[in-house]
Amino acid sequence: MSSSDEPVSSKDTREVIMEATFRALSKHGYSDLRMRDIGEEMDLTRQVIHYHFDGKYDLLSSFLEYVIDQYEGGVEVETDGDPLAELDARVERCLFGPEFEEFSHWDRMKVYHELYAYAQNDERHREVFDEHYGRIRGSIVEVVEDGVEQDVFREVDAELVGQLITDVIHAARGRRISLGHEDAPEQARRAVDEYIVDSLLADPPTTDA
Amino acid sequence: MSSSDEPVSSKDTREVIMEATFRALSKHGYSDLRMRDIGEEMDLTRQVIHYHFDGKYDLLSSFLEYVIDQYEGGVEVETDGDPLAELDARVERCLFGPEFEEFSHWDRMKVYHELYAYAQNDERHREVFDEHYGRIRGSIVEVVEDGVEQDVFREVDAELVGQLITDVIHAARGRRISLGHEDAPEQARRAVDEYIVDSLLADPPTTDA
Repeated sequence: MSSSDEPVSSKDTREVIMEATFRALSKHGYSDLRMRDIGEEMDLTRQVIHYHFDGKYDLLSSFLEYVIDQYEGGVEVETDGDPLAELDARVERCLFGPEFEEFSHWDRMKVYHELYAYAQNDERHREVFDEHYGRIRGSIVEVVEDGVEQDVFREVDAELVGQLITDVIHAARGRRISLGHEDAPEQARRAVDEYIVDSLLADPPTTDA
Repeated sequence: MSSSDEPVSSKDTREVIMEATFRALSKHGYSDLRMRDIGEEMDLTRQVIHYHFDGKYDLLSSFLEYVIDQYEGGVEVETDGDPLAELDARVERCLFGPEFEEFSHWDRMKVYHELYAYAQNDERHREVFDEHYGRIRGSIVEVVEDGVEQDVFREVDAELVGQLITDVIHAARGRRISLGHEDAPEQARRAVDEYIVDSLLADPPTTDA
């Protein structure tokens, strides 16, 4: 069913379809997207899509999982035991994103935030986003808990702090995308640093300038 | 052109159309909305819409301004001179919203957040949201500046703090809507209180439990 002369494995084919979906979504947006738009973005015939996916909705749901997997794989950071440095690294990765070969972090985030807004009407997407949100928040909560254990941070509600920081990251990315505030991620990083992380420290820095 | 027996003023007519648009959007969503869906939600004939608005896009742009006006009118709070109480009141109003006769704060916010996600592709909507965002942030910045002047808060970057709090509010509302986290606004209020506002205080409370 492939128009290519090279044999492609099932895994490669799905990847080809996912990247074609990406290009099509970037051009046409979510609500106007047709299967044929995706077909036009790849060298394989459109029938390949129907072989792998049970219609447009199934394809887009798989695509959402694909984007989230890539994002989560890209924002993992090495633990070196210093909670402050690790928290900083995690916040930075979530805000500024990993580098990808094709499409930037922001190309990906545009699609991600558009699908997020739609999730209010879609149980399956909502569940995927909810689990993803839980994992990102969890990775922040974990490092805050480490900090409390190591007496770097005072006794704080790590769950609440993790949620707060995750919310700030999400809002700053959304603001850059929806309002074009190019400096939103940088502002968020400074604000998290100066007004949240500082307030967690067991030995706060002197606050007078 | 009205099917009603009562004469209605132009202002009333626009209001009727706006509320009909609200009902239609709540039922059909933004991307699937047709003019006839709006017509079906009101007692006036559909021609009235065409008399007042230059097509669907013009109507939806006016509708966005209408929703934002209502929201901003509803979140204004009286200044009584106490920056801490005022900051608290503003954050609460933005998170939990004013009461309206028809449709709850959350009905309105669902539409608001859906249009926000679309604004990335729409210069006019982006501008409306951007100015709105600026006013909400500005009202938070103002009260932080008052607090610094009155020595209730330490010397902080009021612009950055205002932006941070505005981002947290926006993200928590979005999380309630997109992910169904009913407790997101309440979490955000506690987090702003315990981890942001406390860190602004010129005389911080003792941090040991």
